[in-house]
Amino acid sequence: MLIKDIGEQGLLTILQKFCPAEIVGDDCAVMATNPNQSLAVTTDMLVDGVHFSDRTTGPYGAGWRAAAANLSDLAAMGARPLGVTVALAVRADTAVLWVEEFYRGMTACLQEYHTPIVGGDVVRSPVVTVAITAFGEVECDRTISRSNGRSGWAIVATGVHGASRAGLELLLNPEFGQNLEKGDRASLILAHQRPKPRLDVLPVVWEILDSEGVLIAGMDSSDGLADAIIQICRASGVGAKVDRQKIPIPNIMSEIVSTEKALDWALYGGEDFELVLFLPMANAELLVEKIGNGAAIVGIATENTDIWLTDSSGIYPDIVLKIDRGFQHF
Amino acid sequence: MLIKDIGEQGLLTILQKFCPAEIVGDDCAVMATNPNQSLAVTTDMLVDGVHFSDRTTGPYGAGWRAAAANLSDLAAMGARPLGVTVALAVRADTAVLWVEEFYRGMTACLQEYHTPIVGGDVVRSPVVTVAITAFGEVECDRTISRSNGRSGWAIVATGVHGASRAGLELLLNPEFGQNLEKGDRASLILAHQRPKPRLDVLPVVWEILDSEGVLIAGMDSSDGLADAIIQICRASGVGAKVDRQKIPIPNIMSEIVSTEKALDWALYGGEDFELVLFLPMANAELLVEKIGNGAAIVGIATENTDIWLTDSSGIYPDIVLKIDRGFQHF
Repeated sequence: MLIKDIGEQGLLTILQKFCPAEIVGDDCAVMATNPNQSLAVTTDMLVDGVHFSDRTTGPYGAGWRAAAANLSDLAAMGARPLGVTVALAVRADTAVLWVEEFYRGMTACLQEYHTPIVGGDVVRSPVVTVAITAFGEVECDRTISRSNGRSGWAIVATGVHGASRAGLELLLNPEFGQNLEKGDRASLILAHQRPKPRLDVLPVVWEILDSEGVLIAGMDSSDGLADAIIQICRASGVGAKVDRQKIPIPNIMSEIVSTEKALDWALYGGEDFELVLFLPMANAELLVEKIGNGAAIVGIATENTDIWLTDSSGIYPDIVLKIDRGFQHF
Repeated sequence: MLIKDIGEQGLLTILQKFCPAEIVGDDCAVMATNPNQSLAVTTDMLVDGVHFSDRTTGPYGAGWRAAAANLSDLAAMGARPLGVTVALAVRADTAVLWVEEFYRGMTACLQEYHTPIVGGDVVRSPVVTVAITAFGEVECDRTISRSNGRSGWAIVATGVHGASRAGLELLLNPEFGQNLEKGDRASLILAHQRPKPRLDVLPVVWEILDSEGVLIAGMDSSDGLADAIIQICRASGVGAKVDRQKIPIPNIMSEIVSTEKALDWALYGGEDFELVLFLPMANAELLVEKIGNGAAIVGIATENTDIWLTDSSGIYPDIVLKIDRGFQHF
């Protein structure tokens, strides 16, 4: 039996047998290190030609995105970054400049969030491969997990979705979006090449929540907004009604794709690296107001575990929100 | 300019510019997380055909060795393991059984040291690649670092060296060691396939040292005994006299190779995963007695920064101990 016969989910099911069930299954592993604090750890592996390509991003952008993805996983747990380790496999004929640019991009992103590279490994391989492990600290009473959602709570997206996917299309397809102004074009490409992990959202969340002692649910939208909502609902044992009219999509998208396509990219495009949070409605309203910049309440968690995409404008019928448009590794 | 033009050391010099100098350069990164404790983190990347091969070890052994190498790095810092993350890249046509056996081997080793796999990533790649990151806790007054060595201190090897290299030769070369008894043959192969990280040494070290408040130097011998001694001397600004008669080599080696070859394998073979410690002579004598099983004082640190291989039997002249027989990645 080969990996392609069982697929990614089949492989994950096998591997999870080797891990403690209570730790695995969120954006980060979280382990109590003392009575009030936990260590949050996350790891990502990136393979040349699979996860990055000089055609769309270049080494600086690949480095930035790799750092951003890991910091975003820490943000999704409510964790303050402590550092990252970087394991790098290069070919003997890899250009030194490629490696330097990759590290420049990675450290440029890390430095915005005061996070050092604290260690690593360098090896030889036929395929350039990077594994980044990020670790951070989180107060136990501030840990954000996928399973904390409750019915009646608001579902918040901390910013616009679909921009990263649009930027990727601009990079891949020279015919696409030729009517865009230069600045708008650049901003969409930047959304793809220089995503920003939303660590900045955490202090705002604590300011709103700390006096209430409530543990909220969340995850990042790196695999798409739909995926994040569905994963949180499953882990929390709730359903959701998500209003397609409330999903924050950059205005500029209407100039390049249909409304339906823009919604598709917002739900399934992935790599926007926003946070998707489930929290009490009154807190959510305050949070969205304080964050601004496209942050929105996109729906509500329900006791019924079905997950619906509804339409408050009454044009489209309700449909079940599906996960299977997301990126499949195998 | 390509990686092969600058070599591993050239590449490391470039990458270290991107990391804080005070953190990088030991077996683990160590970061203070509270006044008395630090977090120790280490990462290793393993590539199919470069670091493991079904020809010599098989997936179970490769998994065991990967776990052992990371736990050994924690032991070399004086750290208690908290957990590991595993990032795995597999081909679509990798056998599921290979992955399961790798994880079985890895967890078998980890469980001996009560260390869980707490997270990871699974991706697709043309080359099977594994990145393991291990993290642990270390008391600040127990941190073992490469730079703590002082002249006059004893140099301790916690066990025999060369067995792993002999086991590898038995696996690679069917003509070799045919005169060995079955049990001896198996024990050398086991030294290569199932090395044991010396976390068991740490409680003995603390028992001997805790009342003295002395910070000792050390590293593991995964890249060879000579490499470990030289790295510690360089980081500590001391030299050494290492007595070739004191280097612990399994008796059985004399049946299969010359004395000179056995010494070469002990010094440069690598992957014995013992600890090499620099500590005050009286403490060292007690430590070696308590550990037993081949543990030995192999030399003494000197103020003069030259590193000599001496001979207390008077047969061989003193020679300078060199690092350049070790494994070169590029």
